[in-house]
Amino acid sequence: MKLKIAVLPGDGIGPEVTKQSVKVLKAIAERFDHEFEFEEAIVGAVAIDCTGEPLPSATLELCRDSDAVLFGAIGHPKYDNDPSAKVRPEQGLLKLRKELGLYANIRPVRAYENLLEHSPLRPERISGADMVIYRELTGGIYFGEKSTSEDGKTASDLCTYSTFEIERLAHLAFKAAQKRRKKLTLIDKANVLETSRLWRKTVTKLAKDYPDVSLDFLFIDNAAMQMVLNPKQFDVILTENMFGDIISDEASVIGGSIGLLASASVGLENALFEPIHGSFPQATGKGIANPIASILSAALLLDHFNLTREAGVIRKAVEESIKLNVCTQDLNKNNHYSTEKVGDFLEGRISESEHHH
Amino acid sequence: MKLKIAVLPGDGIGPEVTKQSVKVLKAIAERFDHEFEFEEAIVGAVAIDCTGEPLPSATLELCRDSDAVLFGAIGHPKYDNDPSAKVRPEQGLLKLRKELGLYANIRPVRAYENLLEHSPLRPERISGADMVIYRELTGGIYFGEKSTSEDGKTASDLCTYSTFEIERLAHLAFKAAQKRRKKLTLIDKANVLETSRLWRKTVTKLAKDYPDVSLDFLFIDNAAMQMVLNPKQFDVILTENMFGDIISDEASVIGGSIGLLASASVGLENALFEPIHGSFPQATGKGIANPIASILSAALLLDHFNLTREAGVIRKAVEESIKLNVCTQDLNKNNHYSTEKVGDFLEGRISESEHHH
Ligand SMILES: CC(C)[C@H](C(=O)O)[C@@H](O)C(=O)O
Ligand SMILES: CC(C)[C@H](C(=O)O)[C@@H](O)C(=O)O
Repeated sequence: MKLKIAVLPGDGIGPEVTKQSVKVLKAIAERFDHEFEFEEAIVGAVAIDCTGEPLPSATLELCRDSDAVLFGAIGHPKYDNDPSAKVRPEQGLLKLRKELGLYANIRPVRAYENLLEHSPLRPERISGADMVIYRELTGGIYFGEKSTSEDGKTASDLCTYSTFEIERLAHLAFKAAQKRRKKLTLIDKANVLETSRLWRKTVTKLAKDYPDVSLDFLFIDNAAMQMVLNPKQFDVILTENMFGDIISDEASVIGGSIGLLASASVGLENALFEPIHGSFPQATGKGIANPIASILSAALLLDHFNLTREAGVIRKAVEESIKLNVCTQDLNKNNHYSTEKVGDFLEGRISESEHHH
Repeated sequence: MKLKIAVLPGDGIGPEVTKQSVKVLKAIAERFDHEFEFEEAIVGAVAIDCTGEPLPSATLELCRDSDAVLFGAIGHPKYDNDPSAKVRPEQGLLKLRKELGLYANIRPVRAYENLLEHSPLRPERISGADMVIYRELTGGIYFGEKSTSEDGKTASDLCTYSTFEIERLAHLAFKAAQKRRKKLTLIDKANVLETSRLWRKTVTKLAKDYPDVSLDFLFIDNAAMQMVLNPKQFDVILTENMFGDIISDEASVIGGSIGLLASASVGLENALFEPIHGSFPQATGKGIANPIASILSAALLLDHFNLTREAGVIRKAVEESIKLNVCTQDLNKNNHYSTEKVGDFLEGRISESEHHH
């Protein structure tokens, strides 16, 4: 298969981890005779520094022209602590999601048997946990009208949703549930928010088309508690943008490290793959960032093009690295490997993997 | 001291737990020669059933005329799953908060050494955790304009904040930090929300008045992760309404049961005290609800009127009940006590407590 992949390393540890997933994808192409073409572009704080814009138009063009986008991370503390900055790195990512119409953010979360001890949660609570979060990504309070009064004394953010936005994501989530344990949990705050009531109504209606899937509801406050008390209860989670942002970061504690969590953001014509961790500025350049979240995002990319066998080879290599403790310091305190070394190990495993061509 | 206390038991387990906190307050009054007068009123689903309204005007009047409100819980599944219901129990609580101007919701969270094993978190992660959450309670997306289009196909909720709303709560949080470990963490989503940027700007400015308090910032997604990874890092948390709702329910896992968490909601002229757990319909009438959250809310009520010694006696009795395992089934699987029995035990301890009059 021929694929053109736009690579947007971004800020902080983004470039370091993305380098490893590109390496892994190259090993896959080599092993399975695919033609993957990679082209890099800037985004985020680094793009602001170079061009004044977090998402330069050349970067957006490249993404549109590519089959998929491999994204690193963005964000820089100098912008976080300057609430009056007019231009911020995150705008680059948000604009990219919106412009490419990436409405479905898919975040798989699972416990690895070999890493149970790394989780802050007791092993018996998480062993076997396996869920996937469907987060709406181009609507809600992220993209509603924002305003600040002339005198700077009041501000507002508008959260809006339409049945159209809810339905297209809900269909994907129901379909995913059909292929899994057939349970879908809608997380909302329907006892307070009008938009949440629209979600509940719309999803309840849609459920009739999926009689084999059992649907239940949780308020976000309760969900934030249940995610820790009993994460095994979740199969597929469906939720709006902001709640999905919160609950998926929280869910990262199940795997023992946020450095393991990958995500796919898909739309009608484009798809973007990124680790859920951020730019982690404190770790930048130290070679300690865990590349696995980015590498598993690359596996999701392959899945997206039905290269399931190839994706499986990556996942198997990741399992092995975890089993053999070839891990960065977040998962291996005493005898850890660098970002690069973990990438090298996975590359090696892939190159040596059996060829079922 | 003479106090008139409005008692609003509400729905579900609300009446059962509130009965125990009233009992405990009566024991305190007796022991310390106070005159506490209690008057009951309806609120929530039960009020809708009787009067058609979740907060009947007689109930609101009673609250206004009282020195404090002791609140149970509200909510009923028949309304949760009917997104088109025009009247919902929660409106009663929200209206009460708004009408009484209860802008500051204060939620203390701590780990009890004797209950470490009940938490889903590993004991070493939580032992010693001790924080207090200051949640804004009368603004934000809870109270902004809501709308649904004519055709029912789009809905919206507006989140607004003013510097005035932020400052009055922030002052309380900074003052609390000064009396504690002198650390204040503002939780927001300033990389996305305009209102969060106003929070960050306003709180940063105010921090100059409290040079002995160190201020830091966390995005809500990261905070939801940090609350599980390392809850000991938190001293005082300051946050807006919705984020406070989520993070405080999540924080309940630290104590091992949401049945332990009390809250005070204070305004300029009124104050309301309620457990943070909800109406827990499945447990209603079974005698299994933990009354401690409500009883510790009664202790916060006493604190509010500077009856610190009295509040201390309640807390000491609670510690003893936990130490002796006189607990409901959420904390004592094999040999549990009923709601009533736990209340009786605490009442007994208070009556026998030394009198330092
Ligand atoms: C960087 C930030 C804008 C982003 C978000 O909130 O969506 C991130 O937290 C994520 O989850 O991808
Ligand atoms: C019942 C509900 C409206 C309420 C809230 O969201 O504020 C509750 O969850 C709480 O935290 O007091």
